[in-house]
Amino acid sequence: MSVARIAVVAGDGIGSEVTAQARKVIDAVLPGVEATEYDLGAARYNRTGEVLPDSVLAELAGHDAILLGAVGDPSVPPGVLERGLLLKLRFAFDQYVNLRPSRLWPGTTSPLAAVKPGEIDFVVVREGTEGLYAGAGGTLHRDTPAEVATEESLNTRHGVERVIRDAFARAQRRERRKVTLVHKTNVLTHAGSLWARAFDAVKAEFPDVSTEYQHVDAAAMFMVTQPQRYDVVVTDNLFGDILTDIAAAVTGGIGMAASGCINPERAYPSMFEPVHGSAPDIAGKGIADPAAAVLSAALLLDHLGHAEAAQRVTEAVAAELAARTPGAPLRTAEVGDRLAAHAAR
Amino acid sequence: MSVARIAVVAGDGIGSEVTAQARKVIDAVLPGVEATEYDLGAARYNRTGEVLPDSVLAELAGHDAILLGAVGDPSVPPGVLERGLLLKLRFAFDQYVNLRPSRLWPGTTSPLAAVKPGEIDFVVVREGTEGLYAGAGGTLHRDTPAEVATEESLNTRHGVERVIRDAFARAQRRERRKVTLVHKTNVLTHAGSLWARAFDAVKAEFPDVSTEYQHVDAAAMFMVTQPQRYDVVVTDNLFGDILTDIAAAVTGGIGMAASGCINPERAYPSMFEPVHGSAPDIAGKGIADPAAAVLSAALLLDHLGHAEAAQRVTEAVAAELAARTPGAPLRTAEVGDRLAAHAAR
Ligand SMILES: CC(C)[C@H](C(=O)O)[C@@H](O)C(=O)O
Ligand SMILES: CC(C)[C@H](C(=O)O)[C@@H](O)C(=O)O
Repeated sequence: MSVARIAVVAGDGIGSEVTAQARKVIDAVLPGVEATEYDLGAARYNRTGEVLPDSVLAELAGHDAILLGAVGDPSVPPGVLERGLLLKLRFAFDQYVNLRPSRLWPGTTSPLAAVKPGEIDFVVVREGTEGLYAGAGGTLHRDTPAEVATEESLNTRHGVERVIRDAFARAQRRERRKVTLVHKTNVLTHAGSLWARAFDAVKAEFPDVSTEYQHVDAAAMFMVTQPQRYDVVVTDNLFGDILTDIAAAVTGGIGMAASGCINPERAYPSMFEPVHGSAPDIAGKGIADPAAAVLSAALLLDHLGHAEAAQRVTEAVAAELAARTPGAPLRTAEVGDRLAAHAAR
Repeated sequence: MSVARIAVVAGDGIGSEVTAQARKVIDAVLPGVEATEYDLGAARYNRTGEVLPDSVLAELAGHDAILLGAVGDPSVPPGVLERGLLLKLRFAFDQYVNLRPSRLWPGTTSPLAAVKPGEIDFVVVREGTEGLYAGAGGTLHRDTPAEVATEESLNTRHGVERVIRDAFARAQRRERRKVTLVHKTNVLTHAGSLWARAFDAVKAEFPDVSTEYQHVDAAAMFMVTQPQRYDVVVTDNLFGDILTDIAAAVTGGIGMAASGCINPERAYPSMFEPVHGSAPDIAGKGIADPAAAVLSAALLLDHLGHAEAAQRVTEAVAAELAARTPGAPLRTAEVGDRLAAHAAR
């Protein structure tokens, strides 16, 4: 019997290169993982017109987790893979916790002059199954002067409360034990009120966690001027999308950022992927940095209950980054080998 | 006959202190402006329960422009002044261009290590009368586990096209002549498509303006990593709210940021205000920096057709900032006097 069944979607461009390293590292710290490759992404779409056949979705559902490289290519019209694959999986597998840790690792540099490595260490818990991502909207009188287009943000007490509870539980396991709720309650009064009331209710269950509230515009500003202040940030789907890119920017770029789309109850497989894209410009050269893919693998291990293995992988990445000369060229496979060897110790 | 009739809403906290300097400067460069004070904001609300009586709204409508200081106080529940006063005016006076220039002035410092004064100089043209700010939304089954709350983004071809056209017209008057459209077309497919199609249509009218498109998450990132790349950014109401706070952060903080809520046709009065708030903590001490209020006054002058006077005011602020010792204390009234004297030359 395997210790875990993982579906691997290497995807396009550098996806397969970095995913190969993530698998190397997983195998090194957790022997016996059963991995099955699935061919999904721009390449398959261009070849067959298929994005995510129902049969594949059903097969994916039988796994403990999905390891994703990167999907996408300029040749695919915008929205096709986003709605048809990434968001489809997030919704189908009820991945309501979109987890995005932000750390400024020793050896990396922030574009912010006043921030030193080690000083930024927060995690954004972004809601993953509701809000403006619900796909509710429409268009009337298209291509006439009378055209109107709508997008609707749908928020349920069920959906909001569970992600807030997850954020508090994560904060409780961290040193600073602080949760920042980000919304726009002064303008989005209906959804904002729901989020604020759910937040207050859950907060009462976690008396040892401190809290604050910020409007999304203020949070976007503070993430640039004082990113050190955050510990756990919980917010809605779209705000989380924007804030986590700012978070990535101040911690050295999306090249370094890991993410997990998580169903905490493990009723469905969760999905782990680096935030960076398929980078067609450097694909096939063997020079892509696998750090974010490997950090995503650590999140996967942690989610599956292998906290100690996850910790060793994270430490291997930290050591690798600390030892690097900024700007020096790297070989994807060599980095993977070093990380696997270090993590296996 | 007066050269212009201006309604002055000094507001709360430091609002009256900085507005007094803005008026000084306006009087210095454009003698004969008729100014009428209106008492609106947290103080009035706390005293009378009134936010914006219809009679006052009608009186304001009779002016050429509104000069606003800052409204707000922690004692007022969130949303009251935002929806009842600021947004009410933006919508009632069809101020569809929410204009927010971002410059890193000589003498000021950016939190970004790699950016030097003079290198950031862009303007965000934020839509001001549509989108998620329309106030369309609702709540069902409030305070039960079945609660659902919605917020609807409403976008019309009329509203989108006019603000995009304004952005292109502004770009045409600038050196780099570039417009960046920011949206989230890969997820908000209905509104995103409307924005993208309207953008393409208007672009054909301005063959000498170059264009690019960015998703809002990417734009939030690039505003931190490469703010130099932007010239004119056009985007929807909520994205503009968030992006302009990032823009303020990278150019030295909201303390320096000016804004105008503009009805370009002058069918209704436009409104000019510093982006900063009423800052109750330093109110009454005479130490608030009036730079943003005075820069907002420059936008007002420009809007009313006094481009040359506006230019002199902007130059006075630039000279003032360049001559400052960072961190040195300042006296609000003295800065106002210097700016007025410099601009009057
Ligand atoms: C690709 C896109 C649909 C996605 C999102 O908007 O969630 C991406 O930006 C992300 O943050 O994972
Ligand atoms: C106060 C608030 C309603 C307002 C907005 O959201 O537009 C503010 O953040 C702004 O940017 O002017």
